[in-house]
Amino acid sequence: MTLLDKKNYIVKQLYRTHNKKYENYVITRIWHLLNDLDIKIITQQYIVRHNDLIMPDGKVRKKGYALADLYFPQFSLIVEVDEEHHLGQKLEDEKRKSDIVNSVNFQIENIDTTKDIEEIHKKVSQLVGLIIRLKERDENMAVFKKWDYESEFDNQQYIDKGYIDVEDNAIFRKSIDACNCFGLNLTFFMRGGVHHPLKDNVHIWFPKLYKHKEWNNQISLDENTIYEKNIYPEKNKEEITKRLNSSRNIRYAFVHSKDNIGRTLYRFKGEYTLNREKTIELQKAVWERTNTRVETIRGSR
Amino acid sequence: MTLLDKKNYIVKQLYRTHNKKYENYVITRIWHLLNDLDIKIITQQYIVRHNDLIMPDGKVRKKGYALADLYFPQFSLIVEVDEEHHLGQKLEDEKRKSDIVNSVNFQIENIDTTKDIEEIHKKVSQLVGLIIRLKERDENMAVFKKWDYESEFDNQQYIDKGYIDVEDNAIFRKSIDACNCFGLNLTFFMRGGVHHPLKDNVHIWFPKLYKHKEWNNQISLDENTIYEKNIYPEKNKEEITKRLNSSRNIRYAFVHSKDNIGRTLYRFKGEYTLNREKTIELQKAVWERTNTRVETIRGSR
Repeated sequence: MTLLDKKNYIVKQLYRTHNKKYENYVITRIWHLLNDLDIKIITQQYIVRHNDLIMPDGKVRKKGYALADLYFPQFSLIVEVDEEHHLGQKLEDEKRKSDIVNSVNFQIENIDTTKDIEEIHKKVSQLVGLIIRLKERDENMAVFKKWDYESEFDNQQYIDKGYIDVEDNAIFRKSIDACNCFGLNLTFFMRGGVHHPLKDNVHIWFPKLYKHKEWNNQISLDENTIYEKNIYPEKNKEEITKRLNSSRNIRYAFVHSKDNIGRTLYRFKGEYTLNREKTIELQKAVWERTNTRVETIRGSR
Repeated sequence: MTLLDKKNYIVKQLYRTHNKKYENYVITRIWHLLNDLDIKIITQQYIVRHNDLIMPDGKVRKKGYALADLYFPQFSLIVEVDEEHHLGQKLEDEKRKSDIVNSVNFQIENIDTTKDIEEIHKKVSQLVGLIIRLKERDENMAVFKKWDYESEFDNQQYIDKGYIDVEDNAIFRKSIDACNCFGLNLTFFMRGGVHHPLKDNVHIWFPKLYKHKEWNNQISLDENTIYEKNIYPEKNKEEITKRLNSSRNIRYAFVHSKDNIGRTLYRFKGEYTLNREKTIELQKAVWERTNTRVETIRGSR
C-alpha cells in the first residue's frame, strides 16, 4: 500500500513538469539515476530566501519568494533547472495558499538545459553524486531520516522527542494531529484553533495566511510576524479589543496550506506572542515569533 | 552540434508521452537508466505485426497495425507500457501517412504500471539488462550499429554495401538520397519517381500510400502488394493502360511518410513488379514485391 502511495506521489511530482520538456528530462533523470526510495522530492516548491544570494556563475538570486524546480527537503537542497521563476502577481496570490519552505541555509544547484546532452548528463551525475554524499554525511551523523510515506506526517515523532522545532519541517495533514501533540486527545475538530490544555496563556492556532472569508491574515517574509486582520472595520476593532483583553497572548502557529498536489497541510511556524503596542498602532493583531521550538506533551493518545 | 540535435530528438521523443504520467515515468526511467547515447529510441511508433502473437501472460496481440509505446530500432524491440493501443478509425487514417515499421521478428516486452513502485523499478532494471545484453550480442557479432544522428539517414552506407535491404530499416530524409544510391547524381528533385539510369525496366518510386491529390494508393498488411489507383475513373483507365503498355514494369519503392516528430522520411519497402492480370482484374495497378533487396550503384557522388 505504501509503495503504491509512493508511486502515485512521485509520478504526480514528476508530472508537474510535464509541459516543460527540458525540465521534465532533467528532473526525471535526477530521480531515476538517484534511484533511492528513501529520498523525497518535491517539484515546484515555493520557497522563501531570507537574503540575496550570489550564485557561482555570478548571478544574484534576490531575497523573497521563489518557485524551486526541484526540492530535496531532507537536505534543504534546491535544484534550478531553468532560469529562476519570478513570481507574477497571479502566482503571488496563489503562493499565499501554498505550503512555503523557509530556510536560511538552502543549497542551490543549477542545471543549464541549453547545454548539449553529454554536458547535461554530466551535470546530473555530479548532482546525484552530491546527493548521495549528503545522505551519507547525514547517516554518519545519525540524522538522516528516511522518507517514510506513511509516517512522515505522524505526530508521534514529536511527542516522543518532547518538542517541535521549525527546523524539523514539522507538517501535519490534520489539525487534530497538531493538537494532540499537546496532551489533547481529539478525534474531530474543525475550528481555527484550540486552547492549550495545560498552559492558560497558549492557544494552538491554525491560521490561513491569505484572504479567507472575513479574514485577511499575512505573514512577513522572515516569518517572524503574523498579522491578523478582519476585513470589516467594526468587526476588526472588536477582535483587536478581544485580543488585547485576553490573557491568552501566546499562539503556537500551524499554518494552513495546500501542497503542490492539492493536499491540505498544517506547517509549524513557531510560538508567537501578541505585541500589544504594535497591535494598537497598526490596528491589526500583531503576533511576533518568540520561539521556533515548543514543548510537546505526552497525552493519552 | 550533433549532440544538441540528439538532445532535441530525445527530448521530443520523451515529450510525446507527457500526457500519460505513468508511461512518462517508465519510459524516462528506461532511457535514463540505459544511459547510452549509442542506442536510439522511438516513442509511439506505428508497427505492423504479421501474425497473432501470444504474450507470456497469455494475452493475444492481434496481427495488424498497432502503436508501440517505445521502440528500439536497433534490436527490433518493442516495449508496451500500458495496455496495447488499439487504433481507432482516426488513427487508421493518420497511420497511413506515418512511418510504419514492419518486422516479422519483433520482441515485445511489457511493463505493468499498475504494480507498486519497487515492482516497476525491478521490471525496468530487467529490461535495461536485456537491452545491454542485446547490444553486447550484436557487438560480439560485429553487427551493432551505433546510433549516429548525423549519418543514420546517409545513403553512402548503402552505396558502400552494394545493396539496400528492407531488413536494414533503410530510411532517407530526401528522395534524391535514395535516387543517388543508383548511380544518379541529382541535387534537386520533386517528382514522384525517376527512371533507373542503368536498368531500362526499373523506376525508382516515392509513393504516398494515403489519399493525396488524385491518387489513393494503398499497401497490404504484409507489404507484399501496393495498389495504385487514380480517383477519377477515366484518368484511372488511362493510367492503367500506360502501366500495361510500359516495359518499365519494376519499381523500387521508397514510401513517403512522416515520422513521429514531423520529419519527412522515405522508407525502402522493396522491389515491386507489375502483376498485369490482377491489374486488369482489379482495375488498379497491382505491384507485387519480388525482392526485399536491390543492388545499389556507385555513382559520381
